Amino acid sequence: MSADTEPLAAQFERQLLADIPLARAMQLRIDGWDGDCLSLAAPLAPHINDKGCAFGGSLASLMTLAGWGLIVLQLRARGLRCDVYVQDSAIRYLAPIWTDFVTRARLAEGESWDDFFAMLDQRGRGRLRTICRVASADGADAVTFEARFVAMTAKTAA
Amino acid sequence: MSADTEPLAAQFERQLLADIPLARAMQLRIDGWDGDCLSLAAPLAPHINDKGCAFGGSLASLMTLAGWGLIVLQLRARGLRCDVYVQDSAIRYLAPIWTDFVTRARLAEGESWDDFFAMLDQRGRGRLRTICRVASADGADAVTFEARFVAMTAKTAA
Repeated sequence: MSADTEPLAAQFERQLLADIPLARAMQLRIDGWDGDCLSLAAPLAPHINDKGCAFGGSLASLMTLAGWGLIVLQLRARGLRCDVYVQDSAIRYLAPIWTDFVTRARLAEGESWDDFFAMLDQRGRGRLRTICRVASADGADAVTFEARFVAMTAKTAA
Repeated sequence: MSADTEPLAAQFERQLLADIPLARAMQLRIDGWDGDCLSLAAPLAPHINDKGCAFGGSLASLMTLAGWGLIVLQLRARGLRCDVYVQDSAIRYLAPIWTDFVTRARLAEGESWDDFFAMLDQRGRGRLRTICRVASADGADAVTFEARFVAMTAKTAA
């Protein structure tokens, strides 16, 4: 994280853990954020399933937060306060995860922050698709996730 | 729940809460199981988000457990012990949820327990698609979820 982005990300992490009980239960922390990519890290223990690897539902939950957080942080970096909701998501589980893990969220191909902010400015509402990945130890995708979010301008500016 | 299915469902609930930390954090309980439909109930409080309604990632997690549990319970009812993994899922968020809620899991259209068990018997592996729904107060779908699972015969029978 750069000197500019660190305080915003740290503030966001504190708020996430304060506001969303499941984020606390998942023991997540922000591993990095540079404006284009948000990385969330989590230990395996709170995510474990009956087979000793990461529970798929935990991964879906964490990746939903990662995509959502990517958008919320960009809005805050521009001084905008919006409500951001997930509209739909799809996840593929390609390999089990047996260790602590990191998920990385970015915009999906073809999506643009500029178009999103222009739409938000014109209509008070904008949509974005994000992708998240968790990699295996060998670097291949273990889980891939794509989700669409909608942001709506709140009544009071930040 | 009938007299036949209750002990199996109660045992499954205890095991779920013991084995999967996130299931405990979500405070879920089995609301009903009749072989064809598994209902999981949860209070809103542990699932709340920054807006005061149910967090989408929590719902994805709970619905993954519901689909998985539907299959695990049917396997146990037949005395089979398998590892069951989620392979992919897709979720649509249609309306926010502001109260305690129940998700109901069933087989997706066109899926058959008989075909699944025949495949498992022949190949030691079977696949099934499940659908889950959370309804709004007016009965319309608030969230819909579809997931595919694979079951693999474990080395020791139950």
